[in-house]
Amino acid sequence: MPVNIAPLDPAALLPVAGVEIGIASAGIKKVGRKDTTLFRIAPGARVAGVFTLNRFCAAPVRLCQGYLSVGHEIRALVINTGNANAGTGVDGMQRAQAICAATAAELGIEAHQVLPFSTGVILEPLPADKIIAALPAAKADFSASNWAAAASSIMTTDIVPKASSTQVSIGGKTVTITGIAKGSGMIHPNMATMLGYVATDAAISQPLLQQMLKYAADHSFNSITVDGDTSTNDSFILIATGQAGNDEIVDANSADFAALQAAVLQVSQFLAQAIVRDGEGATKFITINVEGGASYDECKAVGYAIGRSPLVKTAFFASDPNLGRILAAIGYAGINDLDVDNIEVRLDDVLVAINGGRNPEYREEQGQAVMNKAEIAINIKLNRGEHQATVWSCDFSYDYVKINAEYRS
Amino acid sequence: MPVNIAPLDPAALLPVAGVEIGIASAGIKKVGRKDTTLFRIAPGARVAGVFTLNRFCAAPVRLCQGYLSVGHEIRALVINTGNANAGTGVDGMQRAQAICAATAAELGIEAHQVLPFSTGVILEPLPADKIIAALPAAKADFSASNWAAAASSIMTTDIVPKASSTQVSIGGKTVTITGIAKGSGMIHPNMATMLGYVATDAAISQPLLQQMLKYAADHSFNSITVDGDTSTNDSFILIATGQAGNDEIVDANSADFAALQAAVLQVSQFLAQAIVRDGEGATKFITINVEGGASYDECKAVGYAIGRSPLVKTAFFASDPNLGRILAAIGYAGINDLDVDNIEVRLDDVLVAINGGRNPEYREEQGQAVMNKAEIAINIKLNRGEHQATVWSCDFSYDYVKINAEYRS
Repeated sequence: MPVNIAPLDPAALLPVAGVEIGIASAGIKKVGRKDTTLFRIAPGARVAGVFTLNRFCAAPVRLCQGYLSVGHEIRALVINTGNANAGTGVDGMQRAQAICAATAAELGIEAHQVLPFSTGVILEPLPADKIIAALPAAKADFSASNWAAAASSIMTTDIVPKASSTQVSIGGKTVTITGIAKGSGMIHPNMATMLGYVATDAAISQPLLQQMLKYAADHSFNSITVDGDTSTNDSFILIATGQAGNDEIVDANSADFAALQAAVLQVSQFLAQAIVRDGEGATKFITINVEGGASYDECKAVGYAIGRSPLVKTAFFASDPNLGRILAAIGYAGINDLDVDNIEVRLDDVLVAINGGRNPEYREEQGQAVMNKAEIAINIKLNRGEHQATVWSCDFSYDYVKINAEYRS
Repeated sequence: MPVNIAPLDPAALLPVAGVEIGIASAGIKKVGRKDTTLFRIAPGARVAGVFTLNRFCAAPVRLCQGYLSVGHEIRALVINTGNANAGTGVDGMQRAQAICAATAAELGIEAHQVLPFSTGVILEPLPADKIIAALPAAKADFSASNWAAAASSIMTTDIVPKASSTQVSIGGKTVTITGIAKGSGMIHPNMATMLGYVATDAAISQPLLQQMLKYAADHSFNSITVDGDTSTNDSFILIATGQAGNDEIVDANSADFAALQAAVLQVSQFLAQAIVRDGEGATKFITINVEGGASYDECKAVGYAIGRSPLVKTAFFASDPNLGRILAAIGYAGINDLDVDNIEVRLDDVLVAINGGRNPEYREEQGQAVMNKAEIAINIKLNRGEHQATVWSCDFSYDYVKINAEYRS
């Protein structure tokens, strides 16, 4: 069961002026399942995206990258679950293009103004005809209040929908930021998560929007892991409709930029953490703080080594303070000149290891008391620099194996 | 249950002239359990070792590296299970040194002629006194025929003992190679496996012995994975007693060197594969052949990405031909200029993917027929060079989680 996620309150999800969402059932895997989601974005909005670095990236990912790099004004997103359209070659690209063309015809825009997204099984042909047939129903469903419904309709093995809203004052105007994400397995994003969409009505220049997106991605979706598998379809999109009425943000050093970035990061981190809390089979939510590193990258490498270790994750599942496994993971994280004698490891506030070995004062009961909790922090000091990184992970349970052994059945 | 390992036949394990082995019970974890193994090596033998690159490497690993780098004549090995003496700081180093000193006193040699090895739980104090107290019993047990008993006494979570012998003719003399290894979890060696010991009575120079060991390690223990966790204690030792009567091998381009290397590799690969077959919870033995790469390293990176993917491993556990997960792993293996359109993926001989997508001729029943087997090959052609590598892995089952959740209970 997901770890400490409050039930989604649709009323707490604030509409974003300039964004409408419609949902429909294409019957991709199951008849009647809401599996197709359509975003309509008002003219004049700006859209930025980051995508998986997986070389087997899906056809829709390649199309998105192409459309965004050319600088087309994006007016729609079309998202299907149940099939990833990855590992599908030229045929998969043609099917993705057909969906963009049909969406454009439906909305009276151009095909290259439509960003397509797919998630689900890899290496199977996308039933594009079914998705195209569902577009009119999705259009008929357009509403600015459909964020909660969209959070559900983009799910695959997710147990709970993931969404968040916040507001911030920018230049005297109230700006809204609302986002949704999905993802539960094949989670070790390398650019972004499986699918994440955040929209704001703030006005901000295109280069600063992209900069803000990259920063938010690195410190949210690019800081989580469930199973260490980087998806073929990771996509994270940030939309700024510019309808809040604030003066356009054009200075990365301005207070407005900082305020909006903090709000976008807040929503992004909530969504990323929700993916971990709903990680396949998860029973524990693990925060790994690494500080005192010589670089951000090495702190993150240590965090990820611990966060993806099957031995650490199974020990946490069992609430077993077998904490030597954490030391082993630190040791193989790839820092070749690491002096392990300087490292401190704490479980929450309990000092477990120091001077290259076990803290003489440490008692197993202390570790056990922390391990019994559902939310646990692993706090590491490398004591070799000033940098810091945080990685979020979950444990590894029987249910992870069950879910992934039976994924297609 | 281990995948296709024939029961160990003690009579098939050939003694190596110049090597005696004694076993004893120190009661480290359980009273009466054979947990302490002592090797006595005749004067004039040469010994080479490779060790884990984990920065949290165990105290005994550091001692071995120090003694071997100075070039001391090694006369004994002392091995305990039940405790890794890793993450134990200065105190752990002192306990390892105390065991070397006690062994030396028992055998009438110097402390720096003794290589110590430990395997088991990390971050707990090594009960050195118990091991020292067991040394007289181990010495009293010395026999050239104790290889099978040693293969059992070095086990931890292993279900079956792992040992192999072969003979080869070198310069008209019959040369024997016999080896043992242990390991079942925390297996993703980066230099060598958990513990592997291979001895030969061949005569070979020290530099060539080290070269041979490195090659054998890279193509055996350094080509396997069970869970992606690199141990703190990986050690692989090659002993050459020089008692077979062959002229000393001093030329790396000689037929004698090639013959001995092939025989050492054969024994090493048997042992490495046996570790995977006995991988924690394993039900399938997976061979991943990657050819047509631009380098050996990139082929191995692809093999390891597939071999350690929890999603691939759970699909194989379920005998589910969800083969898109293999493509995803190839895609995130780290080859940034990989053209996925050139890749061919076969399951045994069944062509699954080609031209960046699914082979149009491929039928699910073909994949299912292969997946139902206990031994499966994943054959990949990158079609971008002439290099090749093979990685061996196993599946990921409920029992992996069970074994590692209950490891200390």
